[in-house]
Amino acid sequence: MKTKAAVAWKSGAPLTIEEVDLAGPKAGEVLVELKATGICHTDYYTLSGADPEGIFPTILGHEGAGIVVDVGPDVRTLRKGDHVIPLYTPECRQCKFCLSRKTNLCQAIRTTQGRGVMPDGSSRFSLDGKPLFHYMGTSTFSNYTVAPEIALAKIRSDAPFDKVCYIGCGVTTGVGAVLFTAKVEAGANVVVFGLGGIGLNVIQAAKMVGADKIIGIDLNPAREAIARKFGMTHFINPKDVDNVVDAIVQLTDGGADYSFECIGSTTTMRQALECCHKGWGQSVIIGVAAAGQEISTRPFQLVTGRVWKGSAFGGARGRTDVPKIVDWYMEGKLNIDDLITHRLTLDQINDGFDLMKRGESIRSVVIY
Amino acid sequence: MKTKAAVAWKSGAPLTIEEVDLAGPKAGEVLVELKATGICHTDYYTLSGADPEGIFPTILGHEGAGIVVDVGPDVRTLRKGDHVIPLYTPECRQCKFCLSRKTNLCQAIRTTQGRGVMPDGSSRFSLDGKPLFHYMGTSTFSNYTVAPEIALAKIRSDAPFDKVCYIGCGVTTGVGAVLFTAKVEAGANVVVFGLGGIGLNVIQAAKMVGADKIIGIDLNPAREAIARKFGMTHFINPKDVDNVVDAIVQLTDGGADYSFECIGSTTTMRQALECCHKGWGQSVIIGVAAAGQEISTRPFQLVTGRVWKGSAFGGARGRTDVPKIVDWYMEGKLNIDDLITHRLTLDQINDGFDLMKRGESIRSVVIY
Repeated sequence: MKTKAAVAWKSGAPLTIEEVDLAGPKAGEVLVELKATGICHTDYYTLSGADPEGIFPTILGHEGAGIVVDVGPDVRTLRKGDHVIPLYTPECRQCKFCLSRKTNLCQAIRTTQGRGVMPDGSSRFSLDGKPLFHYMGTSTFSNYTVAPEIALAKIRSDAPFDKVCYIGCGVTTGVGAVLFTAKVEAGANVVVFGLGGIGLNVIQAAKMVGADKIIGIDLNPAREAIARKFGMTHFINPKDVDNVVDAIVQLTDGGADYSFECIGSTTTMRQALECCHKGWGQSVIIGVAAAGQEISTRPFQLVTGRVWKGSAFGGARGRTDVPKIVDWYMEGKLNIDDLITHRLTLDQINDGFDLMKRGESIRSVVIY
Repeated sequence: MKTKAAVAWKSGAPLTIEEVDLAGPKAGEVLVELKATGICHTDYYTLSGADPEGIFPTILGHEGAGIVVDVGPDVRTLRKGDHVIPLYTPECRQCKFCLSRKTNLCQAIRTTQGRGVMPDGSSRFSLDGKPLFHYMGTSTFSNYTVAPEIALAKIRSDAPFDKVCYIGCGVTTGVGAVLFTAKVEAGANVVVFGLGGIGLNVIQAAKMVGADKIIGIDLNPAREAIARKFGMTHFINPKDVDNVVDAIVQLTDGGADYSFECIGSTTTMRQALECCHKGWGQSVIIGVAAAGQEISTRPFQLVTGRVWKGSAFGGARGRTDVPKIVDWYMEGKLNIDDLITHRLTLDQINDGFDLMKRGESIRSVVIY
């Protein structure tokens, strides 16, 4: 079949809209009609050329929502008409990682996904007979896409695609880091470095579980208003204090119970650890640092009880937890509407990247 | 009263045996007759002058066992004749830290303990009218000592002092790191960097809880035999492999579930983290690094699921957990006898430091 898609031909170049060829789903695969997709920093990271694992030409996009239109052989858990969110972190429920009960990082299709192909080693996308690579196993910048069954979360059919697509990455990454990675408890003091799309979701999850102080850190004073709307109780602009770590320790009477780094700077990663409370403070790295950069601290920080960890896709098991997060949105426990600041057509997708680069959007969503 | 004690007059100098004056216990304090004390690397660290918080003149020693001979006013939980182990990490059960349920690092007397005095700000030790400082709140290199009630664990009266004194530091630090900090479960693969007194206790605790592979790492091939006796299943000498991290990852089919750094080197701290399994491997720093040294890694190591933490006094709550560890020794679950390689009189205490420096002892114990 033919489908309209935004193709990334090479790093640094704008996407172009093409009619590409899409082969039908093979065994264990599913054909999905995307209804909406978010534009995420990770798409830009790869498009910019900074991602050492980026491969071109490819169809980017990993934050979508849509409807199953066909299933390949041996697909047992999905059928035509099901509403789904594609998962760049799949959940096979059979690999060592899924069965460990300790991680969400299913490795069942890791190698082929990293190489931009389906599990059988080939691509379903092509143009003029030449293959285009899949991206993160999802390629949601195409009106139709093929994904493995284990990389699709079935969600309720009354959820609006143009909102819940954001659960495919940003919402789950922030909310999950609070719920599944850190397991923040009621009454805890929480510090969030970076009040962009991820940080705001950290804030609303901290509020949802009953955190006490929720302290936001950002250099941009314009972020304060929306962060307060999502539940932030205190704002610190590092420009306004001598030492941001000292300011947090003072405000929390000893340090944060949990801190979250949502920027990707190794400097703020260290601050996020060192602002934690002696004895039990946990710092969770969510942001992606530039290639080759390293984090450092004195080991004394850990020996006196602080814990340094990280979170990918919020520690969420895609097929198990994503449908729950959709429910929480539908029940009004999570606010996604106010995070989606721009709605675009696929033809306008390059404008979405520009808005992101200029810091003008929280999230832009393409509606098919 | 008078008591015989080994006095550290200044950094770098041998201890001298003196008859010192010991004032009786004030409110909340207890007079203890020490029956035995271990000699630990931390005593040497302070004596050497490397400890930036070291103060002199002082009476070192923090790994003792003895009998209560007198109690001050308001002491409710101990009485004359009780067998006790002094605790450099007290347990008041009333401070923010004790009540957190998340740490063993009671801070009730932290400030005065660090200044080498009892909680009222004064020392009980003196010589020729000049005060001598307490050390770690314990000063077990004295035949008699005074300690706060909250810094004494009451233990069973049939436990031999010359063995269970080692539970005052080394045994609890190693065993506790496995049980209380990491909470190692049956079937886990465990890696231990450094097979000295701490590392061997990590090994026997890992064996006690049913770990699968227990891999020891040491540059000294002579440590292999005793480590195997304590439960080590595999030995890697870093001199014998190209890359110790790769060797561990290969041996464990992906990495350690838990690793423990018992050396104090920031290089091995990094290796201990990076040899952990993707998705869930936890690395626990036990060793004390030299002042000013820093640990580093790529944040990707944490974002992909490894956890970096530390352990002080094995995460053990002194008054609650130390009596349990004494029970485990008495029940034959833990082997302390084979770790105590040398027995000395107080007059021979400087020989004990020499044995340690030459790497000839696992633990030397002074018998009063």
